[in-house]
Amino acid sequence: MVTAGVGAGGALAVGADEAPASPARNPAPGGPPAEQFHGTHQSGIATPQQRYAYFAAFDLEVGDPKGKRLSTERIATNFQHLMERWSGAAERLMRGRPAGPLPVNRPGAPADSGVADGLPPSRLTLTFGLGPELFDTIGRQEQRPRHLRELPAFSTDQLQPAWSGGQLFVQICGDDPQSISHAFRALRGRAPGLARLRWSQQGFLGRFGDATPRNLFGHKDGTANPRAGTAAFDDAVWVSGPDEPSWFTGGTYLVFRKIRMDLPKWDTSTALQQDQSIGRRRDTGAPLSGGHEFTPPDFGRTGPDGEPVIPPDSHLALVRDIPMLRRSYNYDYAFQARAEPAGEHDHHGADRPGHSHDDPLHDHAGTGHDTYDTGVLFCAYLRDPGDFIRAQQKMAAADRLNAFIQHTGSAIFAIPRAVQPGRHLAAALFPQR
Amino acid sequence: MVTAGVGAGGALAVGADEAPASPARNPAPGGPPAEQFHGTHQSGIATPQQRYAYFAAFDLEVGDPKGKRLSTERIATNFQHLMERWSGAAERLMRGRPAGPLPVNRPGAPADSGVADGLPPSRLTLTFGLGPELFDTIGRQEQRPRHLRELPAFSTDQLQPAWSGGQLFVQICGDDPQSISHAFRALRGRAPGLARLRWSQQGFLGRFGDATPRNLFGHKDGTANPRAGTAAFDDAVWVSGPDEPSWFTGGTYLVFRKIRMDLPKWDTSTALQQDQSIGRRRDTGAPLSGGHEFTPPDFGRTGPDGEPVIPPDSHLALVRDIPMLRRSYNYDYAFQARAEPAGEHDHHGADRPGHSHDDPLHDHAGTGHDTYDTGVLFCAYLRDPGDFIRAQQKMAAADRLNAFIQHTGSAIFAIPRAVQPGRHLAAALFPQR
Repeated sequence: MVTAGVGAGGALAVGADEAPASPARNPAPGGPPAEQFHGTHQSGIATPQQRYAYFAAFDLEVGDPKGKRLSTERIATNFQHLMERWSGAAERLMRGRPAGPLPVNRPGAPADSGVADGLPPSRLTLTFGLGPELFDTIGRQEQRPRHLRELPAFSTDQLQPAWSGGQLFVQICGDDPQSISHAFRALRGRAPGLARLRWSQQGFLGRFGDATPRNLFGHKDGTANPRAGTAAFDDAVWVSGPDEPSWFTGGTYLVFRKIRMDLPKWDTSTALQQDQSIGRRRDTGAPLSGGHEFTPPDFGRTGPDGEPVIPPDSHLALVRDIPMLRRSYNYDYAFQARAEPAGEHDHHGADRPGHSHDDPLHDHAGTGHDTYDTGVLFCAYLRDPGDFIRAQQKMAAADRLNAFIQHTGSAIFAIPRAVQPGRHLAAALFPQR
Repeated sequence: MVTAGVGAGGALAVGADEAPASPARNPAPGGPPAEQFHGTHQSGIATPQQRYAYFAAFDLEVGDPKGKRLSTERIATNFQHLMERWSGAAERLMRGRPAGPLPVNRPGAPADSGVADGLPPSRLTLTFGLGPELFDTIGRQEQRPRHLRELPAFSTDQLQPAWSGGQLFVQICGDDPQSISHAFRALRGRAPGLARLRWSQQGFLGRFGDATPRNLFGHKDGTANPRAGTAAFDDAVWVSGPDEPSWFTGGTYLVFRKIRMDLPKWDTSTALQQDQSIGRRRDTGAPLSGGHEFTPPDFGRTGPDGEPVIPPDSHLALVRDIPMLRRSYNYDYAFQARAEPAGEHDHHGADRPGHSHDDPLHDHAGTGHDTYDTGVLFCAYLRDPGDFIRAQQKMAAADRLNAFIQHTGSAIFAIPRAVQPGRHLAAALFPQR
């Protein structure tokens, strides 16, 4: 199954081929140390959250250039080739080195795009995942993680196929968007012939320092997260135990949701409506039952009217006690995002709720820019996606926030554990025989 | 012409109405001091370039909600209202204060979106401009700056109307994208009924410190810029003298071009082809005639073949000695940018040069994401746009870079001088009589 070419390439790709023709990049001195590609768990999960993120999903090529269907064995070999290329490039990029020559480069072409020359790694992390369909495509159904299936439909979903799914996933995080753009280009340039880009997303976080970052509702987002390095974190995030395939030990699941916020509607609702939708005060992040940001909410506390001060249909009341790491990013594409297929778009355009000409914050100029696409790229890392599904079903049924949000994209991935030098990601799916 | 309402609003809007209901934001201590809204020249031009930029163009509303054409006098009054609102909000935002209540807010709505609560100003600047058509729309043709007309068509243009033109312009720069998103939302929320968004763009620069930033070709971009505070800078940038309307003294022109880079083609060309297209070495930024980044190019120097080592059709040879400040940003929308009108898009989609399925870096997954939109948001501030036009005509005729770039958007704006407290931007267009 494993061809000689793959084996040799694997040995070469991971850290060994420091592209001789490429001049060493010259990172500026100072700054935090580089994050590590090799180890137990992939970086970019327990890593303190960086300020920018580039997310992308790819699908494996299943046909040759003439359109003939490739054999499952050939697709599996291609998958391993891509993992070798990506593992090698990721390891170099995270150290602030050139990515190395593209596989399609002509003689004389530079070994790297050079756009990050002189930039430090800026805590760059590259994190890779595998979608449910991949295991069928590469003929490894028996190795599929136990909970890796497409999420069920939720009653409030308004998903666009163009923002959903994918066989391969890349999360690129860092504190410098130019390093991130550089890394994405290096990965993408290694995919042709093996995989095609399906979708991409970009997000940011304000420089909140040690404080919990705010989302575009102005609320703190991530207050209830477990702290990296604690048993609670490890229990919530990392897969272990006999109910999962052994290759997946030390991995995790990622639930990714593109959630558009109806900011014009939000901005013209009252502060009380907003806080009651969340269940917390916007200014301090404290639960409406009192205290400070980290005071446990008191769902039994009632107000003068006898009603709970934290509404039972508030977001806080519905999603409490779900063991997961939320590592979300804000996005603000203004009018850039036009990924809805043209037909869909034309059909729903001006008639979509909240997008009429009368809506004071939905203004058009006849240029075709009629989608105001801003919100949150929700990322939940967790050991059991069933916990997310149960919470999302409760939210879909009752959450007051539903009046202000639309889930427009969705995907789930298995995030393999990290590897040691000389191995490529997910190599354990293909044991040497 | 100036109504009592406008006059009173003007006095209130600029710095005086510190929205009583809005809690003071609590900027984190430390960080650079806030940039100044008031003064001689608008900030965001001589300001050392920040790391992020959000550009947007608006058009004034010319009809009432029922579609009836407004009088020129009414449109001019609306324009002044908007300048009052924007001037007041900009002054507060640049100090790290809440923007103040939206004009459309309901009772009980918060005075600010809160998304920047706790964030320092991060060198936020808001810079405003006026497009050629504006002066007709508000009946001030006689006040139009002498060089403010739409740029001529260049032979290499591939402009999209959706990315071009505009009566009003906003440039929001800063070191924190969340502060920038906050500021854009505050400006946009003040436009309904007065103006409509026409287009928006977002860019970034890597954290290159004191070094010249690199563009997505990997080359240093801005080496020849005049230094702020020098006579060369002032001569190149600021309008003065009797050949311009007096209200425009201390202003400047902005030429804005959205330039898409064909990175797949660039990445598979040779290092020699790349350097000869630019006229400089990628690694050091030195001209091909030798020396270091800031060594003057020697266009007479020839190589062993008798040809000039800096090709006469290189970018450097064609654009030398143009007095302007280039303050450009890189952009990488991946597949987000779909602003081409659907009809155009469907028509040109897969047949557009460089976008075929065979192109190794232009891969599709059947999701409608078939535009790889990455390049530079070219911003030139200069006293005489004629200098840009002459250079662009030479470039369109001969520049080797044309093989790797497409100009897909274009606009020109007059950037008024700054104002003193109590006045709104462009108030000098409406002298009190």
